[in-house]
Amino acid sequence: MPVNLEIPARDALLAVPGVEIGTACAAIRKTGRRDVLLIRIAEGATVAGVFTRNRFRAAPVRVCQEHLRNGGSAIRALLVNVGCANAGTAAQGLADARRSCELVARSLGCEPAQVLPFSTGVILEHLPMDRMAQGIASAAGDLGRSDWLDAAEAIMTTDTIPKAVSLRVPAGDRQLTVTGIAKGAGMIRPNMATMLGYIATDASVAEPLLSRWLREIADASFNRVTVDGDTSTNDSLILVASGASGVTIRDDADPGAAALKEALLAVARQLAQSLVRDGEGATKFITIEVEQAGSPDEAAAVAYSIAHSPLVKTAFFASDPNLGRILAAIGYSGIADLDVDRVDVWLDDVHVASAGGRHPDYREQDGQRVMKQAEIRVRVALARGEHATTVWTCDLSHDYVSINADYRS
Amino acid sequence: MPVNLEIPARDALLAVPGVEIGTACAAIRKTGRRDVLLIRIAEGATVAGVFTRNRFRAAPVRVCQEHLRNGGSAIRALLVNVGCANAGTAAQGLADARRSCELVARSLGCEPAQVLPFSTGVILEHLPMDRMAQGIASAAGDLGRSDWLDAAEAIMTTDTIPKAVSLRVPAGDRQLTVTGIAKGAGMIRPNMATMLGYIATDASVAEPLLSRWLREIADASFNRVTVDGDTSTNDSLILVASGASGVTIRDDADPGAAALKEALLAVARQLAQSLVRDGEGATKFITIEVEQAGSPDEAAAVAYSIAHSPLVKTAFFASDPNLGRILAAIGYSGIADLDVDRVDVWLDDVHVASAGGRHPDYREQDGQRVMKQAEIRVRVALARGEHATTVWTCDLSHDYVSINADYRS
Repeated sequence: MPVNLEIPARDALLAVPGVEIGTACAAIRKTGRRDVLLIRIAEGATVAGVFTRNRFRAAPVRVCQEHLRNGGSAIRALLVNVGCANAGTAAQGLADARRSCELVARSLGCEPAQVLPFSTGVILEHLPMDRMAQGIASAAGDLGRSDWLDAAEAIMTTDTIPKAVSLRVPAGDRQLTVTGIAKGAGMIRPNMATMLGYIATDASVAEPLLSRWLREIADASFNRVTVDGDTSTNDSLILVASGASGVTIRDDADPGAAALKEALLAVARQLAQSLVRDGEGATKFITIEVEQAGSPDEAAAVAYSIAHSPLVKTAFFASDPNLGRILAAIGYSGIADLDVDRVDVWLDDVHVASAGGRHPDYREQDGQRVMKQAEIRVRVALARGEHATTVWTCDLSHDYVSINADYRS
Repeated sequence: MPVNLEIPARDALLAVPGVEIGTACAAIRKTGRRDVLLIRIAEGATVAGVFTRNRFRAAPVRVCQEHLRNGGSAIRALLVNVGCANAGTAAQGLADARRSCELVARSLGCEPAQVLPFSTGVILEHLPMDRMAQGIASAAGDLGRSDWLDAAEAIMTTDTIPKAVSLRVPAGDRQLTVTGIAKGAGMIRPNMATMLGYIATDASVAEPLLSRWLREIADASFNRVTVDGDTSTNDSLILVASGASGVTIRDDADPGAAALKEALLAVARQLAQSLVRDGEGATKFITIEVEQAGSPDEAAAVAYSIAHSPLVKTAFFASDPNLGRILAAIGYSGIADLDVDRVDVWLDDVHVASAGGRHPDYREQDGQRVMKQAEIRVRVALARGEHATTVWTCDLSHDYVSINADYRS
């Protein structure tokens, strides 16, 4: 049961001029569902991508990085399949990813190097290329529409809800559009970006700026969520600026730049949070804020130590204010000179711990009240400096175990 | 259901001359069970301890470290309670731990600084000192026996099986005895030692040597097991050398030293592995061997990355050879320049992955056969150097979630 997350209304998802969508049912792994997505991007668009830092990065990730080596202004299509991650597939996997790009290029009349391929699903298995070919042909025939809900559905794996968000951004006397989709419910601890997110705008954004924005946006959105700490082999976040609106942005000071960047971040953050809300087995949505840290790394270490602790996560599942587990996780987060007597912990507005122990006003029933909520905020103040971060995560439930014990069956 | 672990036979557990045991039912948290253990140590013994590196170390851990500051030859008693960890308890917790030492000292006729206190159980709650006082008095009256099975039972929390091991060691024409006990099933990723292990021998081992041995033994035993990656606030491992045998060991070259150290390590390793075999919800016992690493830290990072991955652990629970999850965990273990094309992975004798992908001879049914076993060995060769390590862990099952969601109720 996702936490406060609903299927987006189809008509709330805005077409992005310059970006077309086609989907197909190719039975890559399961029949009777959309599992191939093709996105065609107009001439003049720029594209930026960030990818997993997992050393076992998948073949399609390696091909994407090759095709983006000289910047993303030549990219004309994105191809996504679910059911097979094409990861841990060595030379054959690279050949299959390249062949997929050739098939798209032939359908659309472009070069293979102008196509970015993406895969998600089981690792260590090869792409079924006959079905991929059929799926690509079928999705290419479906282009010309702009149904982002179809697109979001086509990339789901263990997701229970398609994730898509649209925003309008004023830019002088014109309006820009930002629409994004994402998928992912397990193997979620993005490290650069998550498997898989696509955000498009009809602004024209100059190349180096688009890439810098994407890195900054990923760090404040997808790189701040975790379900299980398992960084995927296939994480990819792509930002497309089609330019079809006629609004051109060359640097941060240009009119509309700040508003557009803010909208892109808002879409990215909402998509990233939706991965957690629909995290495998999630029953609670947890926001972990760490402040007064000595460095950004220190803030992140404490936040992730709490977010990844199986004991903290099962306590949230049980609505049990067993809050000593949070202290333990702070204590083993790796800050060698942490003075625990100066650490404060709150659960929403309830002051739980201070001076190395239970806060004198803390009452079990106050902790209990917050723990029963579907959305819970943990705030930790370290009294070491000025740095802060926020990480979003979910609880660890029986359903997480069931989903991942049964995933391939 | 513990994995290949049975209740030790009472008569297989050997008394250690110079070490007496007393237990009591003090209803610290639950009634009708042994929950206080008192160990009296003869004059002339030496004692060494290693403790958690969690910065939120418990009050009794801090008192132990104070009392061992000048070495462990003055220590005359160990006091253990379960049900309350006396961690996250600030000044009141320290006062309670010191008061517990005073009560023991008064019963036994020694100084409070000659007592080491240990606690395990819920964090953020205070010790019930009235019941502690009754328990200490009752356990002191029970001294004079040497029933290590009672001792092992008295320190259990979510353990389903008491853990105790004895060995005899030849030393010239005499025999030495080594007996140890341990507890712990969750919040287990010892970082120095685990909550709680006690090993005693009747050899006399000189002070600095005993401490060095203990550090080396902890690193090769308790510091190489993990259940859930949660390093406890209370981890403590204590080594007692009573000297009652008359055999004296002053350095590594002394007669009997090598055999005794080997026996101590064997007892420590068996106890550490028994924590994993009885790990919360464990259905599988997993040995992870990483070899050809560039450094010891690198070997450990890869081994723990696999051991802590919820996706790997649930695949073991499901007996599902979803082995791409192991590659993914190796890939995100933090080795920035890892060449995945040189990594090899075996499951027992089955060569699963090589050259960045599936090994050409790997067949799903071979992986399936190994995954169905109760004991599984994962071997990873990194082709980077000469360093190796072994880590023992268990799977992640529904019962882990149940046990930790219900722990306080």
